[in-house]
Amino acid sequence: MSQATRGYAAQSPTSPLGLFHFVRRDPRPEDVVIDILYSGVCHSDLHTARNDWGGTVYPTVPGHEIIGRVRAVGSAVQRVQPGDMVGVGCMVDSCQACRACAKGWEQYCERGATYTYNSVDRVDGSPTQGGYAEQIVVRQEFVLKVPGGLDLAGAAPLLCAGITTWSPLRHWKVGPGSQVAVVGLGGLGHMALKLAKALGAEVTLFSRSPGKEADARRLGADRVVISTDKAQMKAVRGQFELILDTVPYAHDLNPYTPTLATGGTLVLVGFLGSQEPPLNTSALVVGRKALAGSLIGGIAETQEMLDFCGQHGITADTEVIALEDINAAYERMLRSDVKYRFVIDMARFAGQG
Amino acid sequence: MSQATRGYAAQSPTSPLGLFHFVRRDPRPEDVVIDILYSGVCHSDLHTARNDWGGTVYPTVPGHEIIGRVRAVGSAVQRVQPGDMVGVGCMVDSCQACRACAKGWEQYCERGATYTYNSVDRVDGSPTQGGYAEQIVVRQEFVLKVPGGLDLAGAAPLLCAGITTWSPLRHWKVGPGSQVAVVGLGGLGHMALKLAKALGAEVTLFSRSPGKEADARRLGADRVVISTDKAQMKAVRGQFELILDTVPYAHDLNPYTPTLATGGTLVLVGFLGSQEPPLNTSALVVGRKALAGSLIGGIAETQEMLDFCGQHGITADTEVIALEDINAAYERMLRSDVKYRFVIDMARFAGQG
Repeated sequence: MSQATRGYAAQSPTSPLGLFHFVRRDPRPEDVVIDILYSGVCHSDLHTARNDWGGTVYPTVPGHEIIGRVRAVGSAVQRVQPGDMVGVGCMVDSCQACRACAKGWEQYCERGATYTYNSVDRVDGSPTQGGYAEQIVVRQEFVLKVPGGLDLAGAAPLLCAGITTWSPLRHWKVGPGSQVAVVGLGGLGHMALKLAKALGAEVTLFSRSPGKEADARRLGADRVVISTDKAQMKAVRGQFELILDTVPYAHDLNPYTPTLATGGTLVLVGFLGSQEPPLNTSALVVGRKALAGSLIGGIAETQEMLDFCGQHGITADTEVIALEDINAAYERMLRSDVKYRFVIDMARFAGQG
Repeated sequence: MSQATRGYAAQSPTSPLGLFHFVRRDPRPEDVVIDILYSGVCHSDLHTARNDWGGTVYPTVPGHEIIGRVRAVGSAVQRVQPGDMVGVGCMVDSCQACRACAKGWEQYCERGATYTYNSVDRVDGSPTQGGYAEQIVVRQEFVLKVPGGLDLAGAAPLLCAGITTWSPLRHWKVGPGSQVAVVGLGGLGHMALKLAKALGAEVTLFSRSPGKEADARRLGADRVVISTDKAQMKAVRGQFELILDTVPYAHDLNPYTPTLATGGTLVLVGFLGSQEPPLNTSALVVGRKALAGSLIGGIAETQEMLDFCGQHGITADTEVIALEDINAAYERMLRSDVKYRFVIDMARFAGQG
């Protein structure tokens, strides 16, 4: 019963993604076989396809914002049944035993989580392949339930962009009346605005340039502050309990730290690398402020986020494409030319490329 | 009833400290007049005397680790009475009305705390002058009670070195079984070891060089890890809930961040300035870790720390000097040639210099 499937893979750092025939593993007793309906397109997909971070093993099928329908389940599966609408995010396994996993922080698994693609299956050592494909096989603990009533294409980005912003909002206890700011208005940033607003926060978008005001307000911002305008920045000094910084490249944090309230935290969710220009620590010491990081979210937390989105009717703003459009979509993504997430509709897949 | 007093002041960034006659203000109804018995010598004193941070107004009398006996009190004073043994730390006033002050975080007063020296009195606009002097006049809310039984010379450094390390230990909820590491074994570092140990933590000292083992263990460390030894550093990866970094100059934090546990925090208490070499944010994102800062502590927290030290018999390790020795002491402090804090004994003051 192993699953012959088709998808799109990168064969090298420089080749465009193209059609790839491969076989999903035979489902084990605890596995769920999923027909993929939608797959969101995340910057990480592109970074991995092009080996920007090193470590990519080819061929690689990206995609970790997956919505699909359960086709079959292994004999031990109780969480879902055939026909259920489900999601799969950035992880498909973890050790399930360490201190982090015991706390529901599978993303911080001390033995290393198994990622949805470009990782190695914990049981058979095979490479994991992601959601740009017709099917996927995932152990039940990492299969999320999708609440009814949500637009399914728009729900796909919740599995990465949604949980990546939700986890810090919840960890730092954002709720009614919280003062939250968001840096960057892309896939993550637009979800941060929606989720923070729905949690009851007063939400500010920091933007480097004017022109995003109307969009930001529609997405949930109460205010847009132009970060290059010193007067505007001075007016929000000491304001924010939490700043969610979604910018995916090195950038100056020193304009933002003074806008944190005493005890406030600036959380990086987009950038992994050398922090330059250097941070002035005075802004941290005087006011007990913190610079922190946060990585996606745990499985229980992801289910909580999906249920919250179901209750509040929250999905991502998407542009739906066919899998055959992926290389053009990558080029547009590099120019930030998408509002705000590409999502692949597998029903349009013609099996070409 | 204004108080003619003598002390030691810097008259310029380059002149040694010397004898200085000045007048303390007439006590207001809420003021306490204190005969100074001991005054600890903090690096900040030297930085201010030499205008290392800019902004020093001369003449300046340093000293913010003050132990003394109440000589007289204003008509509205109820907290203390003549003869009481009291302490004064880094602050002598704050607005007492903002959100920070309302929380007992006078050190983060939104209108700016009034510091013990090189600051300006909120009422009459006169310059504040510190503890290298015979007397000081302080409003009662900023006068701490010194528990009986403590060595008074050793108690003086509690008012800055003590509270600066106590505040983050308490804020980040260090208690029995907590895994705490300390970077730097000077005035602050040696207090951090003592206080963390007394709170029940398992305490590690990071040291760049061998030879501090015996001293560190005597002060409370359970373990010394040589931070330049890669094998030793690897053995403590993911270990510490809190790292207290007391180093007073820019230094590389990248060796330490991987030793934080998931959710752990590295707190800077010694260094204000440009963080170089740059921090790699990956270590923060992967594990939801934080780099934070912390500044001294609030007044209620300082009293709590003094009471705790009274109960546990904790004081600083000191080398007691006369005020006339201060310039030589500064030179030795710059070479880290003190175990671990100079304290001026005003009973030895001959009024010379």
